[in-house]
Amino acid sequence: MKWEDELSRLAEMINCALEGYLPASSVYPPSIHEAMRYSLFAGGKRLRGAFTIAVARIFGVEEKRVLPAAGALEMIHTYSLIHDDLPAMDDDDYRRGKPTCHKVFGEAIAILAGDALLTRAFEILCLLQEEGFAERTVLQVVQEIARAAGSLGMIGGQVVDLESEGLAVSKETLEYIHRHKTGALFLAAVRSGALLGAAPEDELQALTEYARAFGLCYQIIDDLLDITGDEKLLGKKTGRDLAKKKATYPALLGTEQAKKLAVEQVKICQQSLAPFGPQADFLKDAAFYLLSRKS
Amino acid sequence: MKWEDELSRLAEMINCALEGYLPASSVYPPSIHEAMRYSLFAGGKRLRGAFTIAVARIFGVEEKRVLPAAGALEMIHTYSLIHDDLPAMDDDDYRRGKPTCHKVFGEAIAILAGDALLTRAFEILCLLQEEGFAERTVLQVVQEIARAAGSLGMIGGQVVDLESEGLAVSKETLEYIHRHKTGALFLAAVRSGALLGAAPEDELQALTEYARAFGLCYQIIDDLLDITGDEKLLGKKTGRDLAKKKATYPALLGTEQAKKLAVEQVKICQQSLAPFGPQADFLKDAAFYLLSRKS
Repeated sequence: MKWEDELSRLAEMINCALEGYLPASSVYPPSIHEAMRYSLFAGGKRLRGAFTIAVARIFGVEEKRVLPAAGALEMIHTYSLIHDDLPAMDDDDYRRGKPTCHKVFGEAIAILAGDALLTRAFEILCLLQEEGFAERTVLQVVQEIARAAGSLGMIGGQVVDLESEGLAVSKETLEYIHRHKTGALFLAAVRSGALLGAAPEDELQALTEYARAFGLCYQIIDDLLDITGDEKLLGKKTGRDLAKKKATYPALLGTEQAKKLAVEQVKICQQSLAPFGPQADFLKDAAFYLLSRKS
Repeated sequence: MKWEDELSRLAEMINCALEGYLPASSVYPPSIHEAMRYSLFAGGKRLRGAFTIAVARIFGVEEKRVLPAAGALEMIHTYSLIHDDLPAMDDDDYRRGKPTCHKVFGEAIAILAGDALLTRAFEILCLLQEEGFAERTVLQVVQEIARAAGSLGMIGGQVVDLESEGLAVSKETLEYIHRHKTGALFLAAVRSGALLGAAPEDELQALTEYARAFGLCYQIIDDLLDITGDEKLLGKKTGRDLAKKKATYPALLGTEQAKKLAVEQVKICQQSLAPFGPQADFLKDAAFYLLSRKS
């Protein structure tokens, strides 16, 4: 099966699960549930959730048992996008070709919808118990994801990103931003899959290395697409990073060097997957996919 | 010991624990950690956390073992205040006599500090494992608190409160707001203590009833203080509810009827504690304290 088709299959599974993880739009108070659903079902690729499933599968865990973790990660990813798009933050009007949450529902509801998705994610993680995972393992996953999403992870990255706008940043700062803002949640997605698969320590480490390289490469490509990408395919305006003087690898190193760095990360991805053989093909192909990403 | 002194003792314990639950202000990126600490240590009474400890104590649980739950609840309470105070929400400049988080750190950092406190709360709840509670019990508490803080709990209450500004609301809507916006977290605080104490079902129910009545009474008194309270003692401007045409019990029923309703709730509180005898004195006195609350 082509990688994109496999991703679509996993995304569909995750979407079905997410459908059940949120209250219906009609549930009181409807505005918050409409807003949560509007953003959660705005057409994300479900890459993070798919990683969790694909990694757990390496260790023989049935796909559907991992869905609460995959769904929770996608809820957290969506909440972070809603808050990032707010006027006080990146001030974006469009996301995936649709008006952003605050444009449709107003700022107050957008803030609360983000809060509610984050909160719901932790409630949903508890459902892993019902899939027969040991309670201790479920708590490990809760802790892993909370840490990754917090002020020393994803939120920390967003803080430094915001505070670096318009400044000349060092390579170290840029790496901090990328590793945290985007990398931390990819890392948590991969590691959660490994924890649920009861991966031995050395394999957990190998997968951690993979996720680090993947996350960094993902963000470099994202930055490159903001310069060279097609607005129609991306569903958002390009050139925003440059206009806002955002810290990016292309801005710091130039487009060519940034591409080179991305290719290097993909190589690290491949090397770190060596212990797993063909069972890790989804992860392997995911890294190659990045280099051909158009949206 | 006087009730206020006992509350102060518990608050001090909780503050010590919270000190260790957050990264130091100097930890990178410092702005977010300063903001989190600024609001978390802005002088809250720690009533929610104290309830969790006081309830667990009824069942013989040593106070300090419950601190991660008490701390997590206070972090969630603080995050909700930071977000409620934002310009897009209640737009408040002062809280407990100090400028609100966004006034000091800007809107972006305030939003992220709230997000980070909420996220950290769930990470900290996992520490209950290290206090020797069964993993299953810890997950019950995670679920209880996530549910109470979510779109069907605290956030739902805030949504309806915002959407009711300037409208003539029914008694049902008002009760929904109060029971959710304030009540849900009190309920989770009391029930978490009961879950950690492995309370039998009937006692869990009695405590649930207590918490419902307490939360409602707390909010009625809060609304009354906005009309009749002393700005200096409260540390915030009074008359804001009226100016913003907020839905409140005094606005709907008049001051006298609202007071009567508060007294009725305190009676329910006392009745529901009958099974516990003097071990529940902290809870009993907490309800009486509401009626004499000045700040």
